[in-house]
Amino acid sequence: MTYTLSTTVDRPYAETVEAVRAALSEQGFGVLSEIDLAATLKAKLDVDVAPQVILGACRPPLAYQALQADPSVAAMLPCNVVVRALDDTTSVVEAFDPDAMVTFSDSDAVRSVAVDARQRLSAALAALPKTPVPHQDKES
Amino acid sequence: MTYTLSTTVDRPYAETVEAVRAALSEQGFGVLSEIDLAATLKAKLDVDVAPQVILGACRPPLAYQALQADPSVAAMLPCNVVVRALDDTTSVVEAFDPDAMVTFSDSDAVRSVAVDARQRLSAALAALPKTPVPHQDKES
Repeated sequence: MTYTLSTTVDRPYAETVEAVRAALSEQGFGVLSEIDLAATLKAKLDVDVAPQVILGACRPPLAYQALQADPSVAAMLPCNVVVRALDDTTSVVEAFDPDAMVTFSDSDAVRSVAVDARQRLSAALAALPKTPVPHQDKES
Repeated sequence: MTYTLSTTVDRPYAETVEAVRAALSEQGFGVLSEIDLAATLKAKLDVDVAPQVILGACRPPLAYQALQADPSVAAMLPCNVVVRALDDTTSVVEAFDPDAMVTFSDSDAVRSVAVDARQRLSAALAALPKTPVPHQDKES
């Protein structure tokens, strides 16, 4: 089972993080938390993983609507959007699929929130630049 | 389906938050993120919900082990532990049940991480004070 909405972006990591922030904002999501996973694992375990950040995205009206139907939903908030470097010029963006929330909470309100959140996250991912930066010469 | 590990604590909210932090630390979890959900919804929507905080708990060795097996697991990290006030003297603590992660990722490594995380979160919740503060007179 797939539990993320995912897309690959032909841009370097840092640039992709900024593009994701802008695309989330455009869809009404604020970023409530931000975890630099690579830095955390380096600091705690002295291990190297690909540069990656977990952005905690939240659209407050949706969160409020879901919480009123099922207070336990807080344990699934915010919606994680992970940006991870694949190499120097390519990044992957993976959002936890709101459809997965519906696996756990069968409230109609939670379902409708999940549908709305999924559409907005999908739109945010679709809005990301899919092609390399124009005018940039690449040597293979 | 239940998707949280939950317990009720006969202590006020702020005191419970501190007890949860200590219990998580005792089990090797750091808190990587912290979202004051009530303050966020008040600021963004001017609505009132019960005081509640989402603590993003992470035990780095477990996170690293899971990520090596399935990089997409990042979208389910950290493990949310929510503390919510029920009234002035009682709080509820709800952790997203790591068993739920196994619904999505069937890697053996993720499964073994989920088992370990679940044991530790259960132990943290079990360690919380379940009775009212001693020597405190209550009027009904």
